[in-house]
Amino acid sequence: MQHEPGVTQKLAQFVAATHWDDIPAPVGHQAKRSLMNFFAVALAGCRTAPVEIALTSLAEFSGGRQATVVGRPERIDALSAAFLNAAGANVYDFCDTHVRTVIHPTAPVAPALLALAELCPVSGTDLLLAFILGNEVQARIGLAISPNHYNKGWHITSTCGVFGAAAGSGKLLALDEKKMIWAFGTAATQSSGLCECLGTPAKSVSVGNAARNGLWSALLADRGFEGPPEPIAGVQGFYNAVDGAPNLSPVTDGLGATWELMQTSYKPYPCGFVIHPVLDCVLDWRRDNPAAVVTRVVARGNPLLAARTDRPNISNGRESQVSVQHAVAAALVTGKAGLDQFTDACACDPNVVDLRGKIEVQRDPSLSTIAAEVEITTVDGKTHRLSQKAARGSDANPMSDRDLEGKLRTAAAGWNPRHDIAPLIDAIWALDKSHDVAKLAALSVPEN
Amino acid sequence: MQHEPGVTQKLAQFVAATHWDDIPAPVGHQAKRSLMNFFAVALAGCRTAPVEIALTSLAEFSGGRQATVVGRPERIDALSAAFLNAAGANVYDFCDTHVRTVIHPTAPVAPALLALAELCPVSGTDLLLAFILGNEVQARIGLAISPNHYNKGWHITSTCGVFGAAAGSGKLLALDEKKMIWAFGTAATQSSGLCECLGTPAKSVSVGNAARNGLWSALLADRGFEGPPEPIAGVQGFYNAVDGAPNLSPVTDGLGATWELMQTSYKPYPCGFVIHPVLDCVLDWRRDNPAAVVTRVVARGNPLLAARTDRPNISNGRESQVSVQHAVAAALVTGKAGLDQFTDACACDPNVVDLRGKIEVQRDPSLSTIAAEVEITTVDGKTHRLSQKAARGSDANPMSDRDLEGKLRTAAAGWNPRHDIAPLIDAIWALDKSHDVAKLAALSVPEN
Repeated sequence: MQHEPGVTQKLAQFVAATHWDDIPAPVGHQAKRSLMNFFAVALAGCRTAPVEIALTSLAEFSGGRQATVVGRPERIDALSAAFLNAAGANVYDFCDTHVRTVIHPTAPVAPALLALAELCPVSGTDLLLAFILGNEVQARIGLAISPNHYNKGWHITSTCGVFGAAAGSGKLLALDEKKMIWAFGTAATQSSGLCECLGTPAKSVSVGNAARNGLWSALLADRGFEGPPEPIAGVQGFYNAVDGAPNLSPVTDGLGATWELMQTSYKPYPCGFVIHPVLDCVLDWRRDNPAAVVTRVVARGNPLLAARTDRPNISNGRESQVSVQHAVAAALVTGKAGLDQFTDACACDPNVVDLRGKIEVQRDPSLSTIAAEVEITTVDGKTHRLSQKAARGSDANPMSDRDLEGKLRTAAAGWNPRHDIAPLIDAIWALDKSHDVAKLAALSVPEN
Repeated sequence: MQHEPGVTQKLAQFVAATHWDDIPAPVGHQAKRSLMNFFAVALAGCRTAPVEIALTSLAEFSGGRQATVVGRPERIDALSAAFLNAAGANVYDFCDTHVRTVIHPTAPVAPALLALAELCPVSGTDLLLAFILGNEVQARIGLAISPNHYNKGWHITSTCGVFGAAAGSGKLLALDEKKMIWAFGTAATQSSGLCECLGTPAKSVSVGNAARNGLWSALLADRGFEGPPEPIAGVQGFYNAVDGAPNLSPVTDGLGATWELMQTSYKPYPCGFVIHPVLDCVLDWRRDNPAAVVTRVVARGNPLLAARTDRPNISNGRESQVSVQHAVAAALVTGKAGLDQFTDACACDPNVVDLRGKIEVQRDPSLSTIAAEVEITTVDGKTHRLSQKAARGSDANPMSDRDLEGKLRTAAAGWNPRHDIAPLIDAIWALDKSHDVAKLAALSVPEN
C-alpha cells in the first residue's frame, strides 16, 4: 500500500514544485500590491520604540552590514534585518489582512525574502513567487485551526508566519522537498506569539521572530540540518500542541488551484475596520467643507460599530484607534485619517476633544459592517447626508493601485517630507522584469 | 480593595528581591553540581552535527567574539553563544532532570548566564544566585501545567526554559520588578518547542532559543522594552494558549521557602533511566570479570523496564538508548556505559550484536523503577546474582560530587584526551569565592 503523504510533505512538494509560470497574472499583481502595502507599514513603524530598542540591542551582537533596515540608514545582518522589518511593519494596526484567518500575511514573509535577496542573487519573479508561496503556506496552515487558534490567545500572524517565512525562504534557496520538510520542522519548533502582548512592544517580538526564524529554518535546512517527517500534523507536532482538533482539509484542498493571496485586504486607515465606512463619508464631505461649521454628527452603522467603537472619552493614541468619535473628530479637524490622527497628541488635541462631544453613534441592523450613513449638521442649520455601501479597503471596494501608492507616499513623507519614494514604487510595479532585487529594500531609505 | 498581584508579578518580585544570603547552603552547593553536569553534557555535545551546522550558520551573521562556545576555539556573540551552548548541552539524553516536570533545567539557563558574564562583571555568587532563581522560576511555571503540557507535545524544557533564562539573566542585570515583568512578557511570546522534533537536530533549536531568547528578553527589558502586566496567566497569555486549565498554586506556594533545584537528578548513563539499575549491576560484575565468559543474562525489573526497553534488535545509536539488551551487551563488551556505548558504531559492533541475543528481560512488579536484579551465567555453568535497590543518579542514591567530576572528565577526554579539565572543576567548586566569572566558560576549551 502506498503511504499517503502527510500535510507537511504535501506543502513541501507544492513549494518545491511550483514555478512562476504556474502563477495566474492577478496573483502576481496582488503580490506587488502586498509589497507596496508592506513598505508603507514598515516605513510607518521604522522609527517607533520597538524598532529603535531592538535595533540598538541587536547591533551589539550583529556582524556585517548585509541587509537594509527599511527606512533607516543603518544596515545589519540579514537575520536581524528580517526581524526588524517584520517587527516594524506590524507596530501599527495598519497591515494587510487575510480575512478568514486574521493573519497579517506580508509582515512575516516579505522581510525574510528581502533580507535573503541581499545575500544571494534573486530575480523579481523569484521574489514574487517565493512571497506568493510563503503566503499560501501560512494561510493554509492557519485555516486548519481558525478561529479557535486566535481565540485561545495565539498571535496567528506570528505562529503561522514562521512557516510562511520558511517556505518563501526555502523557495529562494531552491530547497528540495526533503529539505523543505526539515525547514518546516525547525520552523514548527520555533512557532510562538501571544495575543496577550498586543498593544505593547512585546507584540513586535513574535512577528519579528516569525520572519527571522523562518528564514533561519530554511538556511539551516539548506546546510543539512534535519527535522522530523511530520512536524505540523504529527502526534506531538504543531497542530496537536496548539489545538488538538485541526481541520486538515483546507491545508491542501485545491493547493495550486486557488490562491489565498487573493483574499488579502489592505487598510486605508490605521483604525478598527468597522469605523472605515464612516471615515469614507466624513472625509468625502470634509474635502469641500471646513470643520468649524460642524455642530453635530450622527454616525449610523451596523450594531458592531457602536458595540466596538462607541468611546467618546479616550485619552491616548492606542484607544483612539477604536473610538469612532475620535476618528470622526480627528478627520474633520485635520481632513485626514492617517497615522498622525491616532497619536497620543491627536487624542488630546483640544479641537478634537471638543468635536468628539458632538458625535453620536446609532445602530442600524440593516447596514452591513462595511456600510455606514452619516449626517453632518452645520451652523447654518442644514443637515448633510452621506452614505457608503462598501468601505474602501473592503473586498467589495478594494484599495486601488493608486491608493496603495498613496499609502506608501504618505508613510515615507511621515518621517522625511523630502523622501523621494517614487523609485521604490516604480521598482515594485516592475518587479517581474527585474533580474536582481538586491537593491529593492534600500530604495526605502531616504538619501539624507 | 488591594489588587492581588498575579503570578507574573509575584515571580518578578521574588526574583528581584532575593539575595544570596537567602539561599540555603545545600541549594548553593547543588547549583555547583548542576554546573558541573552542564559542562559535561555541553562538552559531550559540542562537536555534534546540530552545533556544527548552527555555529557555521550563525557565524555568518554574528559580530564580535564576545563569548565562549563550550569546548571549542571559536568565539561568537553572546546571544549566539547562549543558543549554541544550550543546544549542545541537550543533544544527548544526558542532561539533569527536574523529575516532577521532566524539565532539563540547566541547559536553557546556564548558557544565558555564562554568556552574559562575558559581557558584564558577574561574581560567582551572582552567577549561582541567578541560576538558582532561573531554575526556580522555570520549574514552578512548569509545575502548573505538568504533565499535560508535555503530553500535548510541548517540549517543556524549551517552553519553560525561556522564562528561566529570562529570570536568571534579569537577575544578573539587576532588573527591578517592573522590568522583570516586561522580560517575562517578551519571553512568553517567544516560548516554543515541540516534542515531535525529539530525536532530530531540530530539537536542539528550541532548547537553544530558550537560552538565547530568555537572555535577549532580559536585555530588551533592561533597555525599556515594555510588555503586558500578566503574560503568563493573562486571558490571552501563555497558560491559556498552551493549556487552558493550569493549576496556579505550585507557581507561588512556598516561593522562597522551598527550592526546586533540590529535586534535580543527574544521569550517570546516557540512556533511559529505567535501564540504569540494570547497568549498575552489570558494570559492578564486569569490573572483575571478562565479557567472553558470559553465556546468558537475565535482567529483572519493574514492568516498565520491559515495556519501554525490551528491544533486542536495534540498528542505530538513537534506538540503542532505549534498548536494555544493547545497554547490557555494550557494558559487558566494553566495561563502560558512556556516550561511546550508544553510538551507531557500537549499535552495529558484531560482539555487541552477538551478546544482545543472549539477554532476557523479566518483569517483577515487586521491584520499583529504580531497582533491578541481574543474573549472569558464565561458561563454567555458574550463575552470578546481582541486585540494585536504588539506581545511581536516583533521588535515593544521587551521584556524588566525585561522580559528577568524573562525568565531566570523561566528556572532556572524549574529544581530546589531553584536555586538562581540572581547572574548570576547581573553579566550579570555588565559585562562591570568585569575584568575576568572565573566564569560567573558557576553561572548557582545550588549549590546543
